[in-house]
Amino acid sequence: MAQLSNRQFRLAARPVGLPKPTDWEFTIEPARAPQDGELLIKTAYLSLDPAMRGWMNEGKSYIPPVKIGAVMRALGVGQVVESRDSAFAVGDYVSSGLNIQDYATLPAKDCTKIDPTLAPLTTYLNVLGMTGMTAYFGLLDVGEPKPGETVVVSGAAGAVGATVGQIAKIKGCRVVGIAGGAEKCAFLINELGFDAAIDYKAGDIRKSLKEACPSGIDVYFDNVGGEILDICLGLINLRARIVICGAISQYNNTTAIKGPANYLSLLVNRARMQGMVVFDYADRYHLAAQEMATWMHQGKLKSREDIVHGLETFPQALLKLFSGENFGKLVLEP
Amino acid sequence: MAQLSNRQFRLAARPVGLPKPTDWEFTIEPARAPQDGELLIKTAYLSLDPAMRGWMNEGKSYIPPVKIGAVMRALGVGQVVESRDSAFAVGDYVSSGLNIQDYATLPAKDCTKIDPTLAPLTTYLNVLGMTGMTAYFGLLDVGEPKPGETVVVSGAAGAVGATVGQIAKIKGCRVVGIAGGAEKCAFLINELGFDAAIDYKAGDIRKSLKEACPSGIDVYFDNVGGEILDICLGLINLRARIVICGAISQYNNTTAIKGPANYLSLLVNRARMQGMVVFDYADRYHLAAQEMATWMHQGKLKSREDIVHGLETFPQALLKLFSGENFGKLVLEP
Repeated sequence: MAQLSNRQFRLAARPVGLPKPTDWEFTIEPARAPQDGELLIKTAYLSLDPAMRGWMNEGKSYIPPVKIGAVMRALGVGQVVESRDSAFAVGDYVSSGLNIQDYATLPAKDCTKIDPTLAPLTTYLNVLGMTGMTAYFGLLDVGEPKPGETVVVSGAAGAVGATVGQIAKIKGCRVVGIAGGAEKCAFLINELGFDAAIDYKAGDIRKSLKEACPSGIDVYFDNVGGEILDICLGLINLRARIVICGAISQYNNTTAIKGPANYLSLLVNRARMQGMVVFDYADRYHLAAQEMATWMHQGKLKSREDIVHGLETFPQALLKLFSGENFGKLVLEP
Repeated sequence: MAQLSNRQFRLAARPVGLPKPTDWEFTIEPARAPQDGELLIKTAYLSLDPAMRGWMNEGKSYIPPVKIGAVMRALGVGQVVESRDSAFAVGDYVSSGLNIQDYATLPAKDCTKIDPTLAPLTTYLNVLGMTGMTAYFGLLDVGEPKPGETVVVSGAAGAVGATVGQIAKIKGCRVVGIAGGAEKCAFLINELGFDAAIDYKAGDIRKSLKEACPSGIDVYFDNVGGEILDICLGLINLRARIVICGAISQYNNTTAIKGPANYLSLLVNRARMQGMVVFDYADRYHLAAQEMATWMHQGKLKSREDIVHGLETFPQALLKLFSGENFGKLVLEP
């Protein structure tokens, strides 16, 4: 097989604040030929996630940081172009940690076969991938919504948020989304069936949220942290559950993270605030994917992706997450 | 019966920061004679609690604020001096919401008979009272400690904290207390059997706590909030439980409450932070009191009270809670 040219983005420096172009090193190498038990995979789509910002920092977290000089970590879907494992054939589609590059050479055991005839490939990075799993287990296992309760989700037009809101609707809840801009808010209501949507860029968030939640908040699924977390804490009901899934408003802080000043609302309301990391639910991914695929085929659950083209655009594309420019799951097509 | 002179402290103004003498009005009135179904009770001891500071503020909380002009709310134990209810005789001892005054006239149904031959009267305001109930249910129901786990408690030489630590020891945990001053720390270790004690007024709290918790923190019972909550969040283990019982470091703030900047440790560690209010466990108070009385008689659980004398000292006595001067449960004997 002719040697394949593999474009890559490597982490050059640990960013202070928003990642800058100089925090990345663009390299081109020959793709490494697979050894026994390995696959050579051509990247089809890469998942761009807020969590990537955390992986770029030094220090203990739920997974080790990306090392300086390493190809940037990313989930992806791709096609097998060379197989040294009998369970995979050339042409098979897989999902795995492909990282920000054109080709990945990986142990076959780290790859999951996916079926592009069941759902578009990008769906496996969104509703049927880690994004969907995060929404499913975060909402249902940690948030424990009951029919008739009010569920509020921030980052609601983002990948996790949109799925959280739709699942909450399926479970019979009143669903209020918080998103940036009139277009996203209209999408949440008209396309995804949310009961209300708050544009956090317009007007008094607290006032709007209070109006949209006349019976208070029973579950708040937090993707953003900061001021919105505090506002929601001020509106929770007795025994409310707050799911801490992310804090995108704080990831690029150059000063200390803003802690939730209203946290004593947890005491007054006997409420809980609980963190979640999707990996803990790996033994149940297949069950969640099955149920969500059924909902998709029934037209109850939509998977919207925002696809950016060109591997070389990665540094700018990633920033769309932090400016709130992406609309749905942000995906990079090399 | 001759008219009894009843000294009282009434809330004169809502304090800004620490309560000042002018936030109180001292009044003397005749004690009101009981009507049918009521008791006239002579106060023996009054419970002084950090929560009282919260009751003085305007606004929604877990119970309504004390009204301006009302006698300050307080739990107490006392003796029946006149009974208009067949279930109570003159001379009986009761616990109830007696408030800061020499005499209370209350519906008999709001009073609980107590037995001064089973335990000293003040114990019914401490381990066998709301303080003990708060420690018991907060630790066991919300904290859910398992044998061998590390439990950290702040305000550890205070009323709730001392009981939390002792119950955690009974349950087979490693127990680390945080308290102010060498004397209190020695007491925790030598008298109450804590495994370690950190003097928050001396040295680097984080470093000391890390040394005292070589296996990390599984349960943190928070009575203080502020910096110590943040330090503990930084040392929690996977699936740790943080019980939010109080935040005495923040009650007299004149600026915004300091939220826990390290709250994303909940995410990384899939941990939870949960508030509690003792009233929710009223249907199980009798069971907890029974179990704790048994522990007391077995010598496993000590009840230490810090008794201040003279009703007129109330405004200054209350401040001991916020300066950390009290050593054990603060009690006022009129």
